[in-house]
Amino acid sequence: MTHIPESHPRAESLKFREIIERNRELGLVAAAGPIAHGRGEAFDYILGEETVPCVKADIYAAAAMLLNARYPVISVNGNTAVLVPELLLSLSEVIPAKLEVNVFYGRTLDREKKIADLLISKGATGILGVNPEEKVPHLHSSRAKVDKNGIAVADVVLVPLEDGDRTQALIAWGKKVISIDLNPLSRTATDATLNICDNITRAFPLLEKAVIELTNDSSKKQHIMESFDSRESRYKILEHMENRVRALKETVRL
Amino acid sequence: MTHIPESHPRAESLKFREIIERNRELGLVAAAGPIAHGRGEAFDYILGEETVPCVKADIYAAAAMLLNARYPVISVNGNTAVLVPELLLSLSEVIPAKLEVNVFYGRTLDREKKIADLLISKGATGILGVNPEEKVPHLHSSRAKVDKNGIAVADVVLVPLEDGDRTQALIAWGKKVISIDLNPLSRTATDATLNICDNITRAFPLLEKAVIELTNDSSKKQHIMESFDSRESRYKILEHMENRVRALKETVRL
Repeated sequence: MTHIPESHPRAESLKFREIIERNRELGLVAAAGPIAHGRGEAFDYILGEETVPCVKADIYAAAAMLLNARYPVISVNGNTAVLVPELLLSLSEVIPAKLEVNVFYGRTLDREKKIADLLISKGATGILGVNPEEKVPHLHSSRAKVDKNGIAVADVVLVPLEDGDRTQALIAWGKKVISIDLNPLSRTATDATLNICDNITRAFPLLEKAVIELTNDSSKKQHIMESFDSRESRYKILEHMENRVRALKETVRL
Repeated sequence: MTHIPESHPRAESLKFREIIERNRELGLVAAAGPIAHGRGEAFDYILGEETVPCVKADIYAAAAMLLNARYPVISVNGNTAVLVPELLLSLSEVIPAKLEVNVFYGRTLDREKKIADLLISKGATGILGVNPEEKVPHLHSSRAKVDKNGIAVADVVLVPLEDGDRTQALIAWGKKVISIDLNPLSRTATDATLNICDNITRAFPLLEKAVIELTNDSSKKQHIMESFDSRESRYKILEHMENRVRALKETVRL
């Protein structure tokens, strides 16, 4: 591990980078995990590395959808587990929702167990998705695997950092899918019922706070459910990105 | 290795991703290499995955600068070596320029040798940078290492995929630095004498073509050298990025 001084302007980003690299070595993060993390870093950089104002409304809509769900499940891949293990646990408790290990690249029982063990070490119980036997219809290979007591029977699935094919297959299976994806143009972000275009390390605490708030305010929750428009949401985030790039461009003339 | 059908819309991008992953396993690409590759993928995606028109002028300016150099050196890190080994060799021959292995993360003699061996297997001779003893002033650790017959005495250094600190240190050392970096806002891109904002897999063949053309046209070469403006270049690429994001945003309304 390199020592990163806390005063470094990108200390937080470098810390997450090291967590991803170390856990790839330990076998929790897939070989494809670091490249995916790098893509996220770049989009986060363009968006300004803070939660975009319009995304806050999407986070409230996600909270309302999770609270209204009959059987909500939070899907956990390697990158998510190692970046926000405590936040996964606390979010699952406040909703409440099941946690399901969901590894779409290089799925092995060893990796599933390591991810589950990390969550268990933080106090989680009843982790699903270790050696599951159910399959997502129309998906092949190990990416199809889901737990018969989890995603298979869920009506709403929260998928931080999901694969495009799986998102489409889950939607086709009749699930509502809430994704967290920093690329607003990815297939996951565009096909999901609702995408939160934010870094998971910022989105999780905000989502938990919104869940707690809406738990005690069912009229606000109902209003949010009725007024949410995923197309409008996608338009606004791209508008923000356009404005950011324009502002960065204008600094070149100074 | 996953089989990727050639008809896949992102077949080329997925092929490069696999080359990076495989060579990280083999020890040619550093642990930090895949995350850096992911960042590049995201910027390339936003730019449209093709050489932006205004970047073509930057490529010609780079060719002119390399041809006018007294002692040009091409710096080769792990990602560059595994993605474009043949193109490195042919570019170094047409300029002509020395090739120097230049590993800034996790530098070991083993990695240096593996990268050199890959280039030698393609027919390269006189590869510099294996166990070098010279140092870049004001840089610490293994990132400072350079070859006394290479970057140390070069006047122009082409650095595809360079680290920000090293770029600054090379500039402070009096070198002209030509970077190839898909992030037009990175410290490398903004501090370099000239940045080519393009994917190295597309930029290398275009740069080689420009070098061949300008070798036989010294008046054009001279005109390019006199008219190049790095600030204008950076403004134009950000303007292109802004227009791309706006166009993507407008598709959401359709």
